[in-house]
Amino acid sequence: MKGGLASFTECIAGDLTAVERLFERELASELACVNSLVRHVSRFRGKMLRPMLVLLTGKACGGLNDSHIVLATVVEMVHMATLVHDDVLDEAELRRKGATINHLRGNEAAVMLGDYLISHSYHLCSSLDSQFASRLIARTTNQVCEGELLQIANRNNLDLDEMTYLQIIGLKTAVLCAACCSLGAHAAGADAATIKRMEGYGLALGTAFQIQDDILDIVGESGTVGKTLGIDIEKGKMTLPMIHFLRTAPREHRTLLRSLMEGRDADKVERIRNLILPSKSVAYAREKARSLTDDARAAAAQLPDSEARRVLEMAAEFVISRPM
Amino acid sequence: MKGGLASFTECIAGDLTAVERLFERELASELACVNSLVRHVSRFRGKMLRPMLVLLTGKACGGLNDSHIVLATVVEMVHMATLVHDDVLDEAELRRKGATINHLRGNEAAVMLGDYLISHSYHLCSSLDSQFASRLIARTTNQVCEGELLQIANRNNLDLDEMTYLQIIGLKTAVLCAACCSLGAHAAGADAATIKRMEGYGLALGTAFQIQDDILDIVGESGTVGKTLGIDIEKGKMTLPMIHFLRTAPREHRTLLRSLMEGRDADKVERIRNLILPSKSVAYAREKARSLTDDARAAAAQLPDSEARRVLEMAAEFVISRPM
Repeated sequence: MKGGLASFTECIAGDLTAVERLFERELASELACVNSLVRHVSRFRGKMLRPMLVLLTGKACGGLNDSHIVLATVVEMVHMATLVHDDVLDEAELRRKGATINHLRGNEAAVMLGDYLISHSYHLCSSLDSQFASRLIARTTNQVCEGELLQIANRNNLDLDEMTYLQIIGLKTAVLCAACCSLGAHAAGADAATIKRMEGYGLALGTAFQIQDDILDIVGESGTVGKTLGIDIEKGKMTLPMIHFLRTAPREHRTLLRSLMEGRDADKVERIRNLILPSKSVAYAREKARSLTDDARAAAAQLPDSEARRVLEMAAEFVISRPM
Repeated sequence: MKGGLASFTECIAGDLTAVERLFERELASELACVNSLVRHVSRFRGKMLRPMLVLLTGKACGGLNDSHIVLATVVEMVHMATLVHDDVLDEAELRRKGATINHLRGNEAAVMLGDYLISHSYHLCSSLDSQFASRLIARTTNQVCEGELLQIANRNNLDLDEMTYLQIIGLKTAVLCAACCSLGAHAAGADAATIKRMEGYGLALGTAFQIQDDILDIVGESGTVGKTLGIDIEKGKMTLPMIHFLRTAPREHRTLLRSLMEGRDADKVERIRNLILPSKSVAYAREKARSLTDDARAAAAQLPDSEARRVLEMAAEFVISRPM
């Protein structure tokens, strides 16, 4: 989110630096081979969206304390673990413009490095005084796994309906964003209603974020997005524009998309993009994401006015306008 | 351990059944696709060694309560997760005489199912009142990952020394057994010295167990062991008999082993077995395992006499005499 949200997040810049430091300190090992792998992971650290959600929510709901730094580091580790394991899943050759772990070291190291990250996230979380965060993080990762498994079970399912699609992205992406906001509010001492409201903010924002990701997989330019485009298509992963297209496009277009999806043409991705881009299906997905960000903004707007609250509102806008 | 330890463990039979029930209840999902994968995992559930260690230690150190059932289930989930991820790692085609997850469903499902198991183990653990177990389990899984990564880094390292080998198996296998015994003793209200002693029991027993596993990979019969033999050799994983052989065998034998290990002959595994079996290297590894089980038995012998204590002593003997 550099050059994007970064300009809005001056109010938590110092805290984000503390998160980065704790992240590195926690993952340091006495074993040189582990450190060399971990160093590689930090090379493709990303937008820090999830730590930002913890910190901004905490700040907007009563103020930050030490546990926010810990929690923000925990959620980033959880997220990094899913990225590393997704590389095994997705066979992606590019991510964040760096070679992926599995490409460099083989699937085995990628599996173990992901496990190392997730284990360290739980370990760090269990250092807090209360079990609240440990329980919420573990429940959340349960759901993330269910989402991934549901997605795998629906690979190449051209009849996937929108409701199941939303369940998949809810579980695999949005619940972690929701947990970030619950944790941030809870650790700031917010009341139950506020925690619930911020959970709703995170859920809506996370869902919009994933829909935007799906849109970018179709419309984005490879150079800008920084990862291989058309991966969803290649892997038979259904996205909202495709689901809408298969429900609403003229019959001959739908038949063509189905046969392209089932085939193995070399220019498959290009032809699918050319088919979907002129349709109304990308606009439909954008509209869905827009409506979710409106919900998120409305939830944030109920907090007392503060700089952090305003950034939360802007963040909702940012996730659907971002080019990456 | 059916037909082996099973006959000794009547004193915890009811508790083991409770562990199996909790295991299944915790992993149940609302998603059919998740349940079908989980059902497959329970098909190759194994010896329940780790739950037994929690329960027997608890019983021998003051008596069992509800938290022992939870902890025993947690450690079995952690162990199952490492088995499932090891299938990705090892490309094993047989395990417990059933097809592996990755063989049936692809690496992606195996990675996610392992994640699902580990996540559920932390979730269950975080349901306990104190953070003690969460911290210990997370620290232990940190070490297990380090052990796996250290092993991957030393694949095909024919110069691996015995100390690093012991570090690898200590981290990847023995620390979890040690944690089982600490947790069992702690939850029974044992004093710090007893907890420490039982941790030592688990560490020695777990190390002996892994050395025996390595021995069986060379000397075992495929039908008895119930998993593909020679996997360690195929994967360039150094085991204690091989390390000893490369240190002590006549020069021409050492040169031959090195060239066989580096080569890709079809009968590689068979030729390596024929080279090592007549040497003193298997006996050396057996002696090492024997000495560790003596240590374990001595630690258990310091507990007050009870049936559970006697089973702990027999368990130490069993791990080095088992045929599987």
